[in-house]
Amino acid sequence: MKIAVQEAAKGVKANDGGPFGAVIVKNGKVVARGHNMVVISNDPTAHAEVTVIRNATAKLKCFDLSDCELYTSCEPCPMCLSAIYWAKFKKIYFGATRKDAANIGFDDKFIYDVLEKNTKPSVVLKPLDRKECVKPMDVWKKKIDKVQY
Amino acid sequence: MKIAVQEAAKGVKANDGGPFGAVIVKNGKVVARGHNMVVISNDPTAHAEVTVIRNATAKLKCFDLSDCELYTSCEPCPMCLSAIYWAKFKKIYFGATRKDAANIGFDDKFIYDVLEKNTKPSVVLKPLDRKECVKPMDVWKKKIDKVQY
Repeated sequence: MKIAVQEAAKGVKANDGGPFGAVIVKNGKVVARGHNMVVISNDPTAHAEVTVIRNATAKLKCFDLSDCELYTSCEPCPMCLSAIYWAKFKKIYFGATRKDAANIGFDDKFIYDVLEKNTKPSVVLKPLDRKECVKPMDVWKKKIDKVQY
Repeated sequence: MKIAVQEAAKGVKANDGGPFGAVIVKNGKVVARGHNMVVISNDPTAHAEVTVIRNATAKLKCFDLSDCELYTSCEPCPMCLSAIYWAKFKKIYFGATRKDAANIGFDDKFIYDVLEKNTKPSVVLKPLDRKECVKPMDVWKKKIDKVQY
């Protein structure tokens, strides 16, 4: 977790984005480090956890991190938590809490509320052209050389 | 949506990842296209929506897409839905449904269930070193030249 905090501090110093860092460890060894890069990369998905997952999978050339552990300096937002599930982690460690983040202006409660169905979604999701959209999925299903993940 | 379907088909043909495509439009003009790149980039976060958001924000040099609309060939997973919230979209269009995706092996129900608290989380989240982790957040809070987002 010390390294995750160092990463967070590095990001703050460089004005890369929010004050959050993360590290991924495999068999006791650091595989990748990362910090929030939303501002410097103009990428709203570049949270510390997403960044470190990208760094780790690029290094390991594998999109399955089930044999790794993730340390993040702050409790993950729903995007990062979902990314953690997609990357197949079994255990992660977090430092600061969602409340700590909200106290400095990084409040993900509105997204948790939408997903927990406690509030009406503020983004309108409109269905459109389902039939056309299913077609590439059917092609994929019949494809012999596909990689299922 | 036609372009989103074309992107999905392109991804299937190239074996880049799952059969999903997306497009971002601003003032009636296409800003960015993208498709699922999980396999080709070894990146479990490279879903079509995350990919197209990255492409659009890189092009527009701005992490706020509130004046854009997103078309995705399939209903977003919780990671992508959260990314859509972080990117500040107001309206998005989706084609195929979560059930269509589940039918070909892309089932995000387990993550929705965790977030909706319908099931016990399968990933263990363990708190650790909160005090140390809050420190870079305090530094950031006092920083004069920070970019709040």
